[in-house]
Amino acid sequence: MVSTMPVVTKIFLIQTKVGDIVDITGDVQAEIERSSLRNGIATIFCPGSTGAISTIEFEPGLVKTDIPFVLDQLIDPNRDWAHHKTWGDHNGAGHLRSFLIKTSFTVPFSHGKLMLGTWQQIIFLELDEKSRQREIIVQLIGE
Amino acid sequence: MVSTMPVVTKIFLIQTKVGDIVDITGDVQAEIERSSLRNGIATIFCPGSTGAISTIEFEPGLVKTDIPFVLDQLIDPNRDWAHHKTWGDHNGAGHLRSFLIKTSFTVPFSHGKLMLGTWQQIIFLELDEKSRQREIIVQLIGE
Amino acid sequence: MVSTMPVVTKIFLIQTKVGDIVDITGDVQAEIERSSLRNGIATIFCPGSTGAISTIEFEPGLVKTDIPFVLDQLIDPNRDWAHHKTWGDHNGAGHLRSFLIKTSFTVPFSHGKLMLGTWQQIIFLELDEKSRQREIIVQLIGE
Repeated sequence: MVSTMPVVTKIFLIQTKVGDIVDITGDVQAEIERSSLRNGIATIFCPGSTGAISTIEFEPGLVKTDIPFVLDQLIDPNRDWAHHKTWGDHNGAGHLRSFLIKTSFTVPFSHGKLMLGTWQQIIFLELDEKSRQREIIVQLIGE
Repeated sequence: MVSTMPVVTKIFLIQTKVGDIVDITGDVQAEIERSSLRNGIATIFCPGSTGAISTIEFEPGLVKTDIPFVLDQLIDPNRDWAHHKTWGDHNGAGHLRSFLIKTSFTVPFSHGKLMLGTWQQIIFLELDEKSRQREIIVQLIGE
Repeated sequence: MVSTMPVVTKIFLIQTKVGDIVDITGDVQAEIERSSLRNGIATIFCPGSTGAISTIEFEPGLVKTDIPFVLDQLIDPNRDWAHHKTWGDHNGAGHLRSFLIKTSFTVPFSHGKLMLGTWQQIIFLELDEKSRQREIIVQLIGE
């Protein structure tokens, strides 16, 4: 008898540039397909404090124009944040956007497929001031 | 011996109108009661990109006045968002609000009951520009 | 043979003052260490509607200056919110901030350790208008 592992923890890497919004839906779906789990939840987690995870309809108007505009409106990219004095860097706005949008997101899957809407994708937002190689954690729990 | 299913995936439907904020606490609690699970987490998920899920004290001041005001302040309802050019629709603000508030929410339950505060309800926010029939996913994992 | 409990539900208490941002990473990690679980997810939940949970790099610039500034910018602390008329209190801004930042957060753990980044801490935000004794729920699910 083969026993099913109820928890599968995976890390995948993405290379980002400043301001990138990356569709990571395929990476998460691929981890489900590589596992023996068919039903459960996928927790997608950014182990860092200048990234964030959410869902959108991944189309150029939102990705290239509207979301950058909204992020600039909500958290001023040009303010000299107190955070800058702590470390001498300039990514305070990125830290605050990550705090607001948050670094964790949970999606149910069923019959081996993420239960997303047809026009709904999982995105990673690079909010830091420089290119990064990012580890994204996907942890599956289920049956 | 009957074995307990550790994952229960359910979908319930709600009919919404533009701007609706719907208390879905009872729907989620009912799915726990219909299941054989007593302890675990309920993941409440909107499979779409113009809805959102959070918690509030569900009282008319917040529901009818304050949250609509805040959503209008955070994301301009009258801007001609770039998203509109992609599809010729006008729900860009709804997409951006869904991105910000997010489409997933996780609540622990114990002894068959959601572990919410006394004055805390789970809400679905209809952020689209028209009435919708919405599928809301509730997935329970536990024991 | 001792069977492993797949769900562990714990509550810890914190004493807060108005505006407190509390690093609760150690409390969550301690619950993992006290459990028999090594891999899974920790759901951190505030059972109330005037608190919130997220992650940040816990340093004084962000904690003492930048996050309070951003919260004041996003949700006006001085507006006479409709919520105040319902109860005769003055914590409408706190309710709206809790709705926006949200009361739930999920972090994966592996080999008995939270999979946070080096400079990433889990925070509880006291958004109410008075000091509180807060119950914070940590529920672990895994193996």
